[in-house]
Amino acid sequence: MKNTFGSALTLTLFGESHGPMTGVVLDGLCPGLPVDEDAIRHELDLRRPAGAISTSRRETDEFVLASGVWGGHTTGTPLTIVIPNADTKSGDYTCGPARPGHADLTAHIKYEGFEDYRGGGHFSGRLTAPLAAAGAILRCALMSKGIRVGTHIARLAGIPDRPFGDLEEDIAALADSSFPVLDPVAAEAMRSAIEAARADGDSVGGVLETVVTGLPAGLGEPWFDSVESELAHALFSIPALKGVEFGAGFAISDMLGSEANDSPAYAPDGTVSFASNNNGGVNGGITNGAPVLFRTAIKPTPTIAKPQNTVNFLTGENTVIEGRGRHDPAVVHRARVAVDAMTLFVAADLLTVRYGCGWFRKEDGK
Amino acid sequence: MKNTFGSALTLTLFGESHGPMTGVVLDGLCPGLPVDEDAIRHELDLRRPAGAISTSRRETDEFVLASGVWGGHTTGTPLTIVIPNADTKSGDYTCGPARPGHADLTAHIKYEGFEDYRGGGHFSGRLTAPLAAAGAILRCALMSKGIRVGTHIARLAGIPDRPFGDLEEDIAALADSSFPVLDPVAAEAMRSAIEAARADGDSVGGVLETVVTGLPAGLGEPWFDSVESELAHALFSIPALKGVEFGAGFAISDMLGSEANDSPAYAPDGTVSFASNNNGGVNGGITNGAPVLFRTAIKPTPTIAKPQNTVNFLTGENTVIEGRGRHDPAVVHRARVAVDAMTLFVAADLLTVRYGCGWFRKEDGK
Amino acid sequence: MKNTFGSALTLTLFGESHGPMTGVVLDGLCPGLPVDEDAIRHELDLRRPAGAISTSRRETDEFVLASGVWGGHTTGTPLTIVIPNADTKSGDYTCGPARPGHADLTAHIKYEGFEDYRGGGHFSGRLTAPLAAAGAILRCALMSKGIRVGTHIARLAGIPDRPFGDLEEDIAALADSSFPVLDPVAAEAMRSAIEAARADGDSVGGVLETVVTGLPAGLGEPWFDSVESELAHALFSIPALKGVEFGAGFAISDMLGSEANDSPAYAPDGTVSFASNNNGGVNGGITNGAPVLFRTAIKPTPTIAKPQNTVNFLTGENTVIEGRGRHDPAVVHRARVAVDAMTLFVAADLLTVRYGCGWFRKEDGK
Amino acid sequence: MKNTFGSALTLTLFGESHGPMTGVVLDGLCPGLPVDEDAIRHELDLRRPAGAISTSRRETDEFVLASGVWGGHTTGTPLTIVIPNADTKSGDYTCGPARPGHADLTAHIKYEGFEDYRGGGHFSGRLTAPLAAAGAILRCALMSKGIRVGTHIARLAGIPDRPFGDLEEDIAALADSSFPVLDPVAAEAMRSAIEAARADGDSVGGVLETVVTGLPAGLGEPWFDSVESELAHALFSIPALKGVEFGAGFAISDMLGSEANDSPAYAPDGTVSFASNNNGGVNGGITNGAPVLFRTAIKPTPTIAKPQNTVNFLTGENTVIEGRGRHDPAVVHRARVAVDAMTLFVAADLLTVRYGCGWFRKEDGK
Repeated sequence: MKNTFGSALTLTLFGESHGPMTGVVLDGLCPGLPVDEDAIRHELDLRRPAGAISTSRRETDEFVLASGVWGGHTTGTPLTIVIPNADTKSGDYTCGPARPGHADLTAHIKYEGFEDYRGGGHFSGRLTAPLAAAGAILRCALMSKGIRVGTHIARLAGIPDRPFGDLEEDIAALADSSFPVLDPVAAEAMRSAIEAARADGDSVGGVLETVVTGLPAGLGEPWFDSVESELAHALFSIPALKGVEFGAGFAISDMLGSEANDSPAYAPDGTVSFASNNNGGVNGGITNGAPVLFRTAIKPTPTIAKPQNTVNFLTGENTVIEGRGRHDPAVVHRARVAVDAMTLFVAADLLTVRYGCGWFRKEDGK
Repeated sequence: MKNTFGSALTLTLFGESHGPMTGVVLDGLCPGLPVDEDAIRHELDLRRPAGAISTSRRETDEFVLASGVWGGHTTGTPLTIVIPNADTKSGDYTCGPARPGHADLTAHIKYEGFEDYRGGGHFSGRLTAPLAAAGAILRCALMSKGIRVGTHIARLAGIPDRPFGDLEEDIAALADSSFPVLDPVAAEAMRSAIEAARADGDSVGGVLETVVTGLPAGLGEPWFDSVESELAHALFSIPALKGVEFGAGFAISDMLGSEANDSPAYAPDGTVSFASNNNGGVNGGITNGAPVLFRTAIKPTPTIAKPQNTVNFLTGENTVIEGRGRHDPAVVHRARVAVDAMTLFVAADLLTVRYGCGWFRKEDGK
Repeated sequence: MKNTFGSALTLTLFGESHGPMTGVVLDGLCPGLPVDEDAIRHELDLRRPAGAISTSRRETDEFVLASGVWGGHTTGTPLTIVIPNADTKSGDYTCGPARPGHADLTAHIKYEGFEDYRGGGHFSGRLTAPLAAAGAILRCALMSKGIRVGTHIARLAGIPDRPFGDLEEDIAALADSSFPVLDPVAAEAMRSAIEAARADGDSVGGVLETVVTGLPAGLGEPWFDSVESELAHALFSIPALKGVEFGAGFAISDMLGSEANDSPAYAPDGTVSFASNNNGGVNGGITNGAPVLFRTAIKPTPTIAKPQNTVNFLTGENTVIEGRGRHDPAVVHRARVAVDAMTLFVAADLLTVRYGCGWFRKEDGK
Repeated sequence: MKNTFGSALTLTLFGESHGPMTGVVLDGLCPGLPVDEDAIRHELDLRRPAGAISTSRRETDEFVLASGVWGGHTTGTPLTIVIPNADTKSGDYTCGPARPGHADLTAHIKYEGFEDYRGGGHFSGRLTAPLAAAGAILRCALMSKGIRVGTHIARLAGIPDRPFGDLEEDIAALADSSFPVLDPVAAEAMRSAIEAARADGDSVGGVLETVVTGLPAGLGEPWFDSVESELAHALFSIPALKGVEFGAGFAISDMLGSEANDSPAYAPDGTVSFASNNNGGVNGGITNGAPVLFRTAIKPTPTIAKPQNTVNFLTGENTVIEGRGRHDPAVVHRARVAVDAMTLFVAADLLTVRYGCGWFRKEDGK
């Protein structure tokens, strides 16, 4: 389906960095969900580059609710959000020398020379803006059912954040932070590392850790539509993301079975809880009621100021490229908004598949 | 799509561990591909438990080419392979106590008590047998176009294998090994670790590393159908798999941009090669012509002999479960066949999407 | 998706006329639905050729519930039914001369000479047997929710049946008839026409009329997933079907708007009924609560005994073909089982999309 | 997929009659296809209401190529066209009284009262404007490969047009006509009938006949992705369309097999032609190389000036509604643009599925 993803709920993404607009179509949403423009603006603000640790490109992110919303509610028909592009300095970009780590070369091969290469075109991180807007609407819908998504920078330039503690408190604290780190000391060290990389014409990467609370047990499918499959599919569509692991992830490979298994137990009120969460809230592809927990690897921004060896695919010669244009010395904190958006989307899709669209408006949640 | 996956090529999986049969439907295959029953048998043999390090369940894996094959070639219509179940000791399994790390509890919630719980039912690793058979057909089709897939156990119980060296040689060596480790000394240590775990009533996990060679540049899509998205979707459908990382994977998060970027260069013959492969052969979701490289985390077999705390979901009481039935102290080496099969499937699908079905029978490969 | 169809519920079809078996995979069914083997056998019996008006091929239609059923109920995982082929006289069929009206020539072009041409291969009406079996399971599930599907031969060889009268009575009467005609006199005339065509080495066609009662208003979608789109997509997959019209159908084109519009009115109990049903129970692609009514055009069986001009695509020469092998002088009454099956499938899919899978097991139907 | 349709090529439709804009996203297009804004404008002009026989709503149809086009060519990424709405007199529409024949009542039930009811909202024929724009791009791409689509009004208000004669000449003549009738005398009579209906506060319907020339044999699939299934699915998404028949259509039901079968014959140059086209260019779901021919039934415009009985679903009372707002006494000629667009889309999709995207830019067409 290329630029459309999802099952009961689908998301279609379009636009280029320097074209007239980027946009997203969300189809399958239940009618009657509140659409809060401030919430959209807030999510876009979290994504927008700001301050010393980001690109100087000004993105005003004025969005238009182009369809599917009326009187402040979803109508049930396709909800489209478009974000006109502004401040697009095309002159900064030229075709030919492939920026290493970017899609310049692969796009040129795939699209046979017809790609819109300006600013990365359709590959640009700019397209995470409409994703963020869509995420904001889904976040409101899920919160009303007691489902929350939060992401922190678990590691940046090798500097670790503290692990998640009280999930609801941590998620609430992250919600308003454009640099989502739980430990303020770690946050400060990370910012310094980013500024040092910028000063050196270089960039840094990091690891994001995401938790989803409140999901009922029983979502997902065995095999191809496992919760892990759906989430990983969605997450790996984010540029710069190179790894996804659930629960203990790669570390589970070194455990014994007796350590790795999460033992369930009934509480006196009949609810089930688990002694550990090494499986990340998913067994056999299906949610078990524990928080869904995963980490994603974000690579350092490929655009750097340092000279790099590369090819010029127009001239067919080897060459050296030096950074031009505005760029981010780190996109980890901004990628978090896209990770949240894709996670919110998959959660909403899984719920819609299982309960039908009407579920979102019911009082009792089921 | 639940138990159907793919775009131009689709794969539908059905069956239960103790039902009449398991099976797979492959749709969209080019007509005229050779179907080699020996190759299918070989792939099934690699998957089949054997010797001291595996379960004692005898799986004869007699397969039937139920449709889509005639005169030793694919016909172009859906190719179905069914594998009748034999040696199914249902008495070994009882419902109620949830085996920790398994899908017993989540299946019970999802299917509201109607799940076929015998031997894990539809969640059983037994369903990787038809996947392996499908993989064998795809492996032949891809090899005829110069595309090869190979997987080794990069780590088991903490014991590392040597990294990939000469890819074609290594892939050839792995093709006939049911315990696919490149370094014989490491292999021996791994076998010992598995036997030790078995002796202790426990189990071990590991990391698989897979490489795909010969893929042309230009496959895949930006965003939702990125090569990473498609592969991760397919791979995370394999039970016991908890992480996927491409190229340097999580380690890329700690690199600087100047280290992480893979610089391309023209060779005198005009081909492009890269100074490193930290991106795993994929940029912007699209193959760049370098080998596609990824690692997957396989958790220790959840079935162990040691007593474990759990819930009995029929009585609603906490209980202790002890291992019964036959089981594997490690499934890492067997999971490798499923990883190969899903990788072969995604590669064939990506090629079919780009070139149409006719490509597979052309002499010159494009 | 080629041989897979559906949204929340999917149906995958495989097999060839003279291969080992035909089969169907139904995925997305709610767990806990009763599976009645007698009902399946009954539906297969309705489809099976019988008596003077059908082919003499004996089809015993022994089916195997290969997966997804346990203890007499659906488990919620893919439900597979396979029907081994028996009595397949391959010698009757030779490749080369294209039977006019059949897919011999198009299959040869599409599959580049690798098609299994025996008995029409994958194109054979034989594949409607597994469809019928799937339909039987769905019919039971829908009947328990008050939804019924019935089809009569509205016209055969130009001979009209009486129109539908009391729908529930008519549907009940049709349920057990392998020659589904409401007016016994018309039925007799139709049978005579079929026998006359057979005696003359020729064949006849007809029009089927189908009604679905009990569907709630609100199913379907505007635009691409309209109820008409979904039904027509499913129906046109049936070989020999050349037209689909809803409500007044093509006759509505000659009406005035004031005649064509169906005026709704509230009954004293608050339910809505319509003064007419020219729109076939669908407005804007969505069910309006009136019975869904449509007609399908079934062409005369292309296999006839009379000599016909055609091409031999192996020799590249024009030739004359004479009927060989067993054939039906009419398939209208047998096509009805496939029409019912596809209609039942689409209805079940539309309901699952709207209400989620749980709906089918709820007492109150919503 | 609700508002997304297609396989290798997909089309996503969004917007409401009185919202900010309507739009379409075409994904999967080959890079390098020319995008001719005049051709888009021409197709929009054909659709636009004009003169005495249409609504007086002024639709300026200024379109924006929002993504996927650069330098006059497709880039290969999603091509989005948006058409801002202008001249939207919301005051003309009130909620409550359901207009008979429209989707007012079904939309109210489906969307639980949250539907944007202004001007039919998402159900409005207004959304055929972006479809027409998409069709224009596809028409150019197909014409460059020798594939043409043409539609005439075969009957309107019971008045027949002459049948197709020389296909290429007829298609060329229809291309520039906003009232596509082959026989000028019939056209005049049809116009008079429309004006008479308008004068009487009523409306008329008609039958469209469409032909596709130049399609290679071998497109489509047996069963669910038959050419008829795909076309019917697409066509039935058009509001007001109530029937689809291929070749002889419903009339084939009254033929004998010996009449209905289309006999193929080799011409001296080795090409195959058929003695008749009762199967509409499709056998077994697959194109046979003859022109694909079908007819569609368009109902009379449901909006009429005459008083009609209906329900007020807000008050729960029976009421009488009289026509308000601007409306068309016939939409047959305008529906033709949507029929062409959906046909062009399906043809392009079938070709892309079979040959891959690269096919469209090759000189030799294969």
